[in-house]
Amino acid sequence: MTTHRNMTSWTCPLPLRDYPSIVLGHGSGGKLSAELVEHLFLPAFQNDALGLLDDAAVLDGDGGRLAFTTDSYVVQPLFFPGGSIGELAVNGTVNDLAMCGAVPRFLSAGFILEEGFPVEQLGRIVEAMARAARAAGVTIVAGDTKVVERGHGDGCYINTAGVGSVAPSVRLGPDRARPGDAIIVSGTIADHGMAIMSVREGLQFDSIIRSDTAPLADLVAAMIETHGDGIRALRDPTRGGVASTLNEIAAASQVGMVIEEGAVPINPVTRSACDLLGLDPLFVANEGKLVAVVAPEAAEPLIRCMRAHPLGQRAAVIGHVTDQHPTMVVARTEIGGQRVVAMQVGEPLPRIC
Amino acid sequence: MTTHRNMTSWTCPLPLRDYPSIVLGHGSGGKLSAELVEHLFLPAFQNDALGLLDDAAVLDGDGGRLAFTTDSYVVQPLFFPGGSIGELAVNGTVNDLAMCGAVPRFLSAGFILEEGFPVEQLGRIVEAMARAARAAGVTIVAGDTKVVERGHGDGCYINTAGVGSVAPSVRLGPDRARPGDAIIVSGTIADHGMAIMSVREGLQFDSIIRSDTAPLADLVAAMIETHGDGIRALRDPTRGGVASTLNEIAAASQVGMVIEEGAVPINPVTRSACDLLGLDPLFVANEGKLVAVVAPEAAEPLIRCMRAHPLGQRAAVIGHVTDQHPTMVVARTEIGGQRVVAMQVGEPLPRIC
Repeated sequence: MTTHRNMTSWTCPLPLRDYPSIVLGHGSGGKLSAELVEHLFLPAFQNDALGLLDDAAVLDGDGGRLAFTTDSYVVQPLFFPGGSIGELAVNGTVNDLAMCGAVPRFLSAGFILEEGFPVEQLGRIVEAMARAARAAGVTIVAGDTKVVERGHGDGCYINTAGVGSVAPSVRLGPDRARPGDAIIVSGTIADHGMAIMSVREGLQFDSIIRSDTAPLADLVAAMIETHGDGIRALRDPTRGGVASTLNEIAAASQVGMVIEEGAVPINPVTRSACDLLGLDPLFVANEGKLVAVVAPEAAEPLIRCMRAHPLGQRAAVIGHVTDQHPTMVVARTEIGGQRVVAMQVGEPLPRIC
Repeated sequence: MTTHRNMTSWTCPLPLRDYPSIVLGHGSGGKLSAELVEHLFLPAFQNDALGLLDDAAVLDGDGGRLAFTTDSYVVQPLFFPGGSIGELAVNGTVNDLAMCGAVPRFLSAGFILEEGFPVEQLGRIVEAMARAARAAGVTIVAGDTKVVERGHGDGCYINTAGVGSVAPSVRLGPDRARPGDAIIVSGTIADHGMAIMSVREGLQFDSIIRSDTAPLADLVAAMIETHGDGIRALRDPTRGGVASTLNEIAAASQVGMVIEEGAVPINPVTRSACDLLGLDPLFVANEGKLVAVVAPEAAEPLIRCMRAHPLGQRAAVIGHVTDQHPTMVVARTEIGGQRVVAMQVGEPLPRIC
């Protein structure tokens, strides 16, 4: 391998020196991901928009506020109950835009295909993307396809980037949570991650666990219309689940959080699968749910609005923000115990999206 | 593999049926790439912006015209004389925006890393991206990192998407070439592709062939200022080289093209490498050059403007557009012969970008 003459100066910063090579956890959405961003990407790409570490960057353009985001999708298997990498690639990026309060408009799609990948499977994935885009009201306007040799890649990786428009009045951010705020989830948690794991592990249950992959922009638009001023932060709890999302918001806002475990909606079959595999559902990925931190007075009208929407029927307040134990998320169990829900270092569920 | 219940209806269209599996040529920028786009992506994602098949989509937004594009980068090796995958990932997307006459503004960066990839190499790649972004005047505002297991992926794949703003007066398109127009290249061709191939094949020459990777937005801005009305189409001849680019424009405009081979600028060492490997330099990738089709009266002022720019010093008129042999590109050799320069089906140089 030839090295570039100008590139000899880079030295690995602490704490990345503990990991001289990339490990799966660097893609987990947990602590290692955060370290890579904080110590490697941010210093190199330094700018305010990226520094916010939000789901999408909100940019002041010539003619209005623009939201811009990207995600790559490497899920295995490519097809699973409830969807495929195609739906994920559209809905995931649509949701990152929606979490900034943006109206998603345009998507790009970049495919990295493995030589030998069946064109029929690609066709089904692309059809799934097209359906998901129509459902979300976005247009796929730019694309690219690269092919790598057999044995490289994994059949199909997809990157989507998305552009949306943000109304001037919308102000959301992970740093806006305040003590007393309510914490809401829009429905049952952990379904996507357990759908994938059930296929991978060959688990059989009375009913099939289906991914919850869905576009959330319409639900967010209804929430903003109902009580936009009362919404502090929105996030879709994908990799790392609800627990990682809440830890990120708690850290950005320098507040503590208390979760009532009994209030967290979860499908019984998903809970059984988590128990069987020894996984905490708070850490398992969702692809069609949102976490909202909202002002106390906004909680009740927002819950009513969300439950009237097909994608928010099981919305619930699951806890509150506190000035106790800043940056720490604590879960109260149904029998009165309590435990710290700390950010995980590694990767409990690789290749989930 | 579980199949999605709604996905059983997809049937493979002709002529994709000739290729039931993806082959390297589907990523080559040649005929197979075009077939995949025409018969698979376009019917699924149908919309006007994607239908234009331009380097970037130009979109009418709320407050102005927006250009939006994406490219994935899978080049091997990751580091080569003149640059790395990092420079390519920034300059390639910057150039796609510039070819629409856009001022590049924001980039996203999505990394797919292989478990075990040295963090030190990632650091050098990211530094290269940061330097290239500064040089091009763009900001990297959104990012994502996924990690795949050891033995999958290839160390590092990068996707970048880009957003730029387009002045209302700019009208460029591959369908705007007219008989009599001049065809310009901004400098020596085939350097990027031969830099990569020389490393891969272990070729030794008196001087090293360096990739020409460079951001072209500033050169394009100067050209638009000099004679914007006279520019019909701009393209950066990457995968498939100048020949594929000209074939695409000829097809979109339903015109013929004549290239004077003796007028095409090429470095002697690059020509030697092409001869040695039996490659036609017209088909070899460039990463810091543009092809311009311009009105006859604009050719001379544009050449003067380009030669005054560091990235256009060897700009030259290499041929003209004709109403003879529509959609066909013909090269006249220096000894008076002529040959058809047809779009290639397959992949002469895989993994070049």
